[in-house]
Amino acid sequence: MKVAAFGEVMMRCSVPGKKKLFQSNNLEYMFSGTGLNVMGQLGRFGLETELITKLPDNPLGDAAVSQIQSLGVNTGKIARGGEFIGIYFLEEGFGKRPSVVTYTDRRGSSFCKSKLKDYNMEDILENVQMIHFCGISLAMNDDVRNIMFSMAKRAKEKGILVVFDCNYREKLWKKKYEDAIPNYKKIIEYSDIVFASEKDISNIFGIKSEKENVEIEEILRDLIPEFAAKYDLKLVSGTIRDNKSLNSQKLKGFAYKNKKIYFSEYQELEIYDRIGGGDAYTSGILYKYLKKAKLEEMVDFAVASAVLGHTTYGDTPVSALEEVEELLHGDFSELKR
Amino acid sequence: MKVAAFGEVMMRCSVPGKKKLFQSNNLEYMFSGTGLNVMGQLGRFGLETELITKLPDNPLGDAAVSQIQSLGVNTGKIARGGEFIGIYFLEEGFGKRPSVVTYTDRRGSSFCKSKLKDYNMEDILENVQMIHFCGISLAMNDDVRNIMFSMAKRAKEKGILVVFDCNYREKLWKKKYEDAIPNYKKIIEYSDIVFASEKDISNIFGIKSEKENVEIEEILRDLIPEFAAKYDLKLVSGTIRDNKSLNSQKLKGFAYKNKKIYFSEYQELEIYDRIGGGDAYTSGILYKYLKKAKLEEMVDFAVASAVLGHTTYGDTPVSALEEVEELLHGDFSELKR
Amino acid sequence: MKVAAFGEVMMRCSVPGKKKLFQSNNLEYMFSGTGLNVMGQLGRFGLETELITKLPDNPLGDAAVSQIQSLGVNTGKIARGGEFIGIYFLEEGFGKRPSVVTYTDRRGSSFCKSKLKDYNMEDILENVQMIHFCGISLAMNDDVRNIMFSMAKRAKEKGILVVFDCNYREKLWKKKYEDAIPNYKKIIEYSDIVFASEKDISNIFGIKSEKENVEIEEILRDLIPEFAAKYDLKLVSGTIRDNKSLNSQKLKGFAYKNKKIYFSEYQELEIYDRIGGGDAYTSGILYKYLKKAKLEEMVDFAVASAVLGHTTYGDTPVSALEEVEELLHGDFSELKR
Amino acid sequence: MKVAAFGEVMMRCSVPGKKKLFQSNNLEYMFSGTGLNVMGQLGRFGLETELITKLPDNPLGDAAVSQIQSLGVNTGKIARGGEFIGIYFLEEGFGKRPSVVTYTDRRGSSFCKSKLKDYNMEDILENVQMIHFCGISLAMNDDVRNIMFSMAKRAKEKGILVVFDCNYREKLWKKKYEDAIPNYKKIIEYSDIVFASEKDISNIFGIKSEKENVEIEEILRDLIPEFAAKYDLKLVSGTIRDNKSLNSQKLKGFAYKNKKIYFSEYQELEIYDRIGGGDAYTSGILYKYLKKAKLEEMVDFAVASAVLGHTTYGDTPVSALEEVEELLHGDFSELKR
Amino acid sequence: MKVAAFGEVMMRCSVPGKKKLFQSNNLEYMFSGTGLNVMGQLGRFGLETELITKLPDNPLGDAAVSQIQSLGVNTGKIARGGEFIGIYFLEEGFGKRPSVVTYTDRRGSSFCKSKLKDYNMEDILENVQMIHFCGISLAMNDDVRNIMFSMAKRAKEKGILVVFDCNYREKLWKKKYEDAIPNYKKIIEYSDIVFASEKDISNIFGIKSEKENVEIEEILRDLIPEFAAKYDLKLVSGTIRDNKSLNSQKLKGFAYKNKKIYFSEYQELEIYDRIGGGDAYTSGILYKYLKKAKLEEMVDFAVASAVLGHTTYGDTPVSALEEVEELLHGDFSELKR
Amino acid sequence: MKVAAFGEVMMRCSVPGKKKLFQSNNLEYMFSGTGLNVMGQLGRFGLETELITKLPDNPLGDAAVSQIQSLGVNTGKIARGGEFIGIYFLEEGFGKRPSVVTYTDRRGSSFCKSKLKDYNMEDILENVQMIHFCGISLAMNDDVRNIMFSMAKRAKEKGILVVFDCNYREKLWKKKYEDAIPNYKKIIEYSDIVFASEKDISNIFGIKSEKENVEIEEILRDLIPEFAAKYDLKLVSGTIRDNKSLNSQKLKGFAYKNKKIYFSEYQELEIYDRIGGGDAYTSGILYKYLKKAKLEEMVDFAVASAVLGHTTYGDTPVSALEEVEELLHGDFSELKR
Repeated sequence: MKVAAFGEVMMRCSVPGKKKLFQSNNLEYMFSGTGLNVMGQLGRFGLETELITKLPDNPLGDAAVSQIQSLGVNTGKIARGGEFIGIYFLEEGFGKRPSVVTYTDRRGSSFCKSKLKDYNMEDILENVQMIHFCGISLAMNDDVRNIMFSMAKRAKEKGILVVFDCNYREKLWKKKYEDAIPNYKKIIEYSDIVFASEKDISNIFGIKSEKENVEIEEILRDLIPEFAAKYDLKLVSGTIRDNKSLNSQKLKGFAYKNKKIYFSEYQELEIYDRIGGGDAYTSGILYKYLKKAKLEEMVDFAVASAVLGHTTYGDTPVSALEEVEELLHGDFSELKR
Repeated sequence: MKVAAFGEVMMRCSVPGKKKLFQSNNLEYMFSGTGLNVMGQLGRFGLETELITKLPDNPLGDAAVSQIQSLGVNTGKIARGGEFIGIYFLEEGFGKRPSVVTYTDRRGSSFCKSKLKDYNMEDILENVQMIHFCGISLAMNDDVRNIMFSMAKRAKEKGILVVFDCNYREKLWKKKYEDAIPNYKKIIEYSDIVFASEKDISNIFGIKSEKENVEIEEILRDLIPEFAAKYDLKLVSGTIRDNKSLNSQKLKGFAYKNKKIYFSEYQELEIYDRIGGGDAYTSGILYKYLKKAKLEEMVDFAVASAVLGHTTYGDTPVSALEEVEELLHGDFSELKR
Repeated sequence: MKVAAFGEVMMRCSVPGKKKLFQSNNLEYMFSGTGLNVMGQLGRFGLETELITKLPDNPLGDAAVSQIQSLGVNTGKIARGGEFIGIYFLEEGFGKRPSVVTYTDRRGSSFCKSKLKDYNMEDILENVQMIHFCGISLAMNDDVRNIMFSMAKRAKEKGILVVFDCNYREKLWKKKYEDAIPNYKKIIEYSDIVFASEKDISNIFGIKSEKENVEIEEILRDLIPEFAAKYDLKLVSGTIRDNKSLNSQKLKGFAYKNKKIYFSEYQELEIYDRIGGGDAYTSGILYKYLKKAKLEEMVDFAVASAVLGHTTYGDTPVSALEEVEELLHGDFSELKR
Repeated sequence: MKVAAFGEVMMRCSVPGKKKLFQSNNLEYMFSGTGLNVMGQLGRFGLETELITKLPDNPLGDAAVSQIQSLGVNTGKIARGGEFIGIYFLEEGFGKRPSVVTYTDRRGSSFCKSKLKDYNMEDILENVQMIHFCGISLAMNDDVRNIMFSMAKRAKEKGILVVFDCNYREKLWKKKYEDAIPNYKKIIEYSDIVFASEKDISNIFGIKSEKENVEIEEILRDLIPEFAAKYDLKLVSGTIRDNKSLNSQKLKGFAYKNKKIYFSEYQELEIYDRIGGGDAYTSGILYKYLKKAKLEEMVDFAVASAVLGHTTYGDTPVSALEEVEELLHGDFSELKR
Repeated sequence: MKVAAFGEVMMRCSVPGKKKLFQSNNLEYMFSGTGLNVMGQLGRFGLETELITKLPDNPLGDAAVSQIQSLGVNTGKIARGGEFIGIYFLEEGFGKRPSVVTYTDRRGSSFCKSKLKDYNMEDILENVQMIHFCGISLAMNDDVRNIMFSMAKRAKEKGILVVFDCNYREKLWKKKYEDAIPNYKKIIEYSDIVFASEKDISNIFGIKSEKENVEIEEILRDLIPEFAAKYDLKLVSGTIRDNKSLNSQKLKGFAYKNKKIYFSEYQELEIYDRIGGGDAYTSGILYKYLKKAKLEEMVDFAVASAVLGHTTYGDTPVSALEEVEELLHGDFSELKR
Repeated sequence: MKVAAFGEVMMRCSVPGKKKLFQSNNLEYMFSGTGLNVMGQLGRFGLETELITKLPDNPLGDAAVSQIQSLGVNTGKIARGGEFIGIYFLEEGFGKRPSVVTYTDRRGSSFCKSKLKDYNMEDILENVQMIHFCGISLAMNDDVRNIMFSMAKRAKEKGILVVFDCNYREKLWKKKYEDAIPNYKKIIEYSDIVFASEKDISNIFGIKSEKENVEIEEILRDLIPEFAAKYDLKLVSGTIRDNKSLNSQKLKGFAYKNKKIYFSEYQELEIYDRIGGGDAYTSGILYKYLKKAKLEEMVDFAVASAVLGHTTYGDTPVSALEEVEELLHGDFSELKR
């Protein structure tokens, strides 16, 4: 039995030494994507994992497949063909200077141009215990959405746990929420486990709190039970980030299951590579869910996973299980030898 | 007075250490294009140069502009806007292993999507003595062709020397010669100086030799005078490459002007960076044409420029005038100190 | 209309990885100088800029010119000749370990050996709206001072705004203030806009406060009006740095214009590359002065520019106008995508 | 159905820039081994592959597994444990300066200390069509030999094709041939396909020719039929290298099957990375054997594979099937775009 | 007169960019060891230094010798031979992610396999004023211990100051304290200057305090006089680290001499390279002891040395004497030019 | 007993990847000089060596000293002080593109400004068996010449072998031979071993042959005996390079001793790093002279040393004794493992 994810893989090209693109002539590249990041981390935790996507049949596609394999994620069901892989360029910021991401055209990518017939549903879902989707794929186009809906529907029918990470990205929806809402409402019908923020629940799913001027935690305590009940969700989870300033970033996690909700303590973040930090949290929740951990343990483990996920190079979190557990249990030493 | 070129600028990302993309995680990047390469080399020869193109108004476009400026090429007339810059990835070969180029989608680039209104013709052509176009731009789409035709026509009217490099790339024309021929026949009407091969003259312009089983030089001696006369060309030039094996590559140049034709001797090539070597030849011809050099001097200088152009890093040839002249005059020493 | 600067360009060679020179065998190089830094930043803000200097006619000079052009600064009036370019080596510090700069002989540089006849005053000052000088050039030798005085005098006559940055460097004056004072008093006669610190005003120009044991801000409120009146200055500006410890560096800016003085709030600094941070402030003031901004806006913008100038690689500050404005308006997000 | 190999994986640390170790402070590392190299190349040719070895359960072992996976080779049956991975340091030579390899202690490696019980024979051999062993593993110690003999014997019983590459390394056998002969004679009893040189056949297996002063090819025509008959081998293959000087290296391949022998033409070698070139030949033979190619096609393909194998970075040959076929069919162009 | 140290030299291979080994293919290497680190720093302070060890007679050994020489440490008495050099791999951590060290087999190293006869005692100890040993060598094996005891004994006889740094590493002793105690008790008999922690004094030497729930400083004030008296020690010194969290590390030093004890203030640590920071402290104490400094000056200098030792690249501290003194005297400026 | 050399040490900064300075922002640096190169190679051959020079007392001087030590050359007699170290920048050529060296001002270097009193003659010459000077130092200025003459004279008096390498560099002498001749004639009076070319002997020392249109070897057979006799030289040696084209460079050596002359065969050169190749030849001659080898052995060894010296990175040749001997004896294998 294994876990799978469906989603786009992009090439990330970052400029070393925190330079701007016009100051350099070197790039460092890797391949990433929400689904890949989660599979990569779950693989490092010891699960059998598989990525479902489409990649071009050229040297860039080969490099992507090779790197996905290097993370221990199975690539046997990846469709090959189409013309391009999406690329993004990262200029890392520093202090009060934000990191800046510039995209090339992802709309023409092999994944975005992929069709339902590129994916053999029965083959893909065989022996799968859990499958992960995210809101970024949902924003692509009708073809990709069609694949998602079909795959999620068939997974649900087969009793596979369907995970959906809302991951709402405003820029990707032409008419913003107006475009997004009907699609989110469709995919959630097939979902068992949902990652969502307070904004997602209220703005997309229309479940609002009447409380005002209270901590976001208070609002979530109101919204989530209603949200879970409405869509018959087995688990709702997410994080709250408190980034009042650059020097003081912190994160807490929460989860709701069997009518119980739990919020972790805030943990300080020290950030080496910002992108993909959230996927480390998701991975922690999913791993512990599959291991049937208690609610508190699940969330605390996921927060520790997120803390470490911000300290490693690259989008894909790569902590070993023991590293997360050591951090969780507080047996910290700065040098292990 | 200055020389100008119209054409696309692409980002070249090459893998260091002659690795394949899947063996590495580093890239080295630069910006290039036929027009830019010729302007870059002419600038190094001491001419005032200007590039006409369109680049996105984002960090990748900024990096391109910055690098074009670093070559001393003026960028003040470059249109900014659109969404993307075309990118190509270069895996360098070795010995019997060919170099491999993989493109991202250039069809969506700012240049390819540019319209006539992006270019202020009168402003662009002011103080221009010579303008360079090439067959790669011609292959893009109707809009780009429309810009080329309008610009070449207006230049011709203003008495500006119009240069056209045939540069036929089969992959860029859907129906191959069928698509290309009418467009080539249109641009050549406005051209004064044309770079062409024997194949270009016979396959595109339909001027054929009856000689068989003879050296290509013999055929060109037949075709070129007819070609020049038919289209009223001031200068026809090109190169013959003899690459019987990897270990023995050589190149000779030829030019026809005022009813006289001249072929240089073959020169051996030692190749450090293959791409852009031809543009060094073109630059040599144009430089000497503007300096009113004799036919022989023009071609021999251009061949020396091409020999050096293969020995320097990057697509854009960057030899100094004195370097070409020293090679030409045979005062070679392996170490100048 | 454009802005210009007169000053030396040096080659900076820094050791990567915060190593000492004897621990490494790699260097990273760039070219910089106070005038170049200010022109580079003003060019990024959108102004037409020009650098006036002298560089050797060799590959090091070519590299300097190429990099200056890459910043969008015009190089057409740079004199070429002489023998050398000044070089400095930077060993970056960390924590309580200071950064260490080692110079090669700048006294023999093309700039320091340049003569009045190397510069065509009328050509240089044509279409110039503002010209920048600094106290480092003033410290070089009689020839360079002679050029500065002539250029500033002629600029003043033509109604060009003359900017002078005091930038007093003790090590460069053999007899310290004794040598410096007469020269500073001469250049200030031609100046409209002056950047100065409390020490500069009191020690060089002899304008002293009787207040004791008060904040430096209080002293400046006394000195500056007298200083501005005495030398008929249109604008006096500067910064106050509070570096009580390495972990708590902050900076505020001030400016005096039309008999009004304004001091900004202190802003925290997070430092990626220390050198050239002050030039980002200068650039901010000059940009807003030319845009006829109000006093407060001018200083606050300059402080934001300085904050960002400390976060980018290299001596030359390279922030885009929108980046400074976003920081100024507080719309901060750590990741823009 | 898949192919498998049993053998050690070592870490290769090479000094960049053809420096000696004492001139540098940088290394580039990869993981390799005869079995891995052959599996890597066969995977690139499109076969399902699996590596059988033992690696330490530490970050070095993790890195090895990750890189093996990146080549598309299955790692699910790799034993984890023991203490160390063998490491070798490569100082690349140039011209008349030889490349120099320095080993750390491989005798203490996880692989060399592995025991029969570390390998689940039935599980390992399931669905395997062909399994590869080599003479380097045979030289390790009694435990490793014991594993090899058991695995080869069981494979033979199950009808799996057993491949043995003689790969005799004098330094690894204390008493040279005296120690080696009985072990080679034992493993060959289980072998179907053997890679051997003239020296291997005569010195190890005692089959000698009476011809003198003839080309090695002539001798092999005598020895191989007797060798194949004596040990009932399905295929005998190998290469002849003619390295009279550094500037003129060439290689031919040969194979004997069904009582027919074939020798290819000599092919010139241009060498980018010397190590592992032979494994590219082996891979070519095995691939074509499995595809039931004719003798001539098999050898010519393998030689083309070897020619390309010397042109790519790293020990493991990584050519794509089409690349080898293009070279074989002579459709060479130096730049594919 | 010079100072010497006896101990192992290892090769440190660290992964750049804070990556894990499986994320990279590059390493940066250097050579280090407690004795070498102390000699390196004392050499930078201006003393004549010598390292006594054994290194293989191969390119790795050559590289080690070359780097030791580059630090100005004499290598003329280093034995050459044996087979291997110990290697350790460093994955640098970040934030809450610990740094991880992975060793190869040091038990087979030239040093660990060295015998008494490899070292010419009389030659080694000639002109030596002080010799340094440490608890890591003591943990190796009987042969190495035998060398240590013989060398320390003979040094003591010759009136050479014998320094012993307890440096207890639990992992290196099979039966932990049970194995270690008799050996520590033997070497201390020959020692004049001992570096020890409270745990070392109580757990190894059995001198315990009856105080409870007090600061460690209080306990040391009890233990050290007894410890010094019992073993007739001229100097006892050490540090107390207070690492309550990663963001707040601090260190104080202490020393006891002539029946007087002194504890420095806590100093904050900003850490660029953690390993070897303690050796910078040791070096500071030894330098000032030899210079006959007062107790307070000795400890304060050593603490400043330790603070700087954490800010430089590599295991070996490399601060200049003036750098330590400037920090000590508080004349801090972040940029020296 | 040891060998010593007197001469300047410069910093070499080379641009990686065969780029021009304006195409890059990285440099690789090392320290070199004729005397240092010879000492470095003799040290690698196993002799005790010492360099006499003056270096600034700053981080650049520290780095030079550290690198000299890393080569095993003693630095204890190096004077420290003055202001600068000479620097040269190397743009490596390729094929028909020459390598280009650009100097900074060496006239102001610590070495060039050094005075007689910086060197303690008696201390420097103690225990020295042979001392090396070269014509580059001779070209500096009167002070440096004065030091050379005094040191050579005193060495001669003490019976130390004085080596002089003519190394005539036209650019360094204002009036060319007119300036050089008297100084060469002075130093040769103190010399025992001289390295000279046919041009040096005829143009500087005025010993001419009447033969015309003969091989240079024939001329040397005439000139050298007269040259050696006239100046009472123990050994005259040199090389003849035949660089008719870039693809065919070869070198032979010659030496004259005890009235016998020997010319080696030509050996082909394959060049990885051109600079310093000649110093490898010199080192070979001196090493074998001290070992009292026969004339033929001396020259053949030196030629092998030169062949290898062109294959290693950097100016300083670094071959081990065994490497030269293996090449000499023809036991070549491209890979030693």
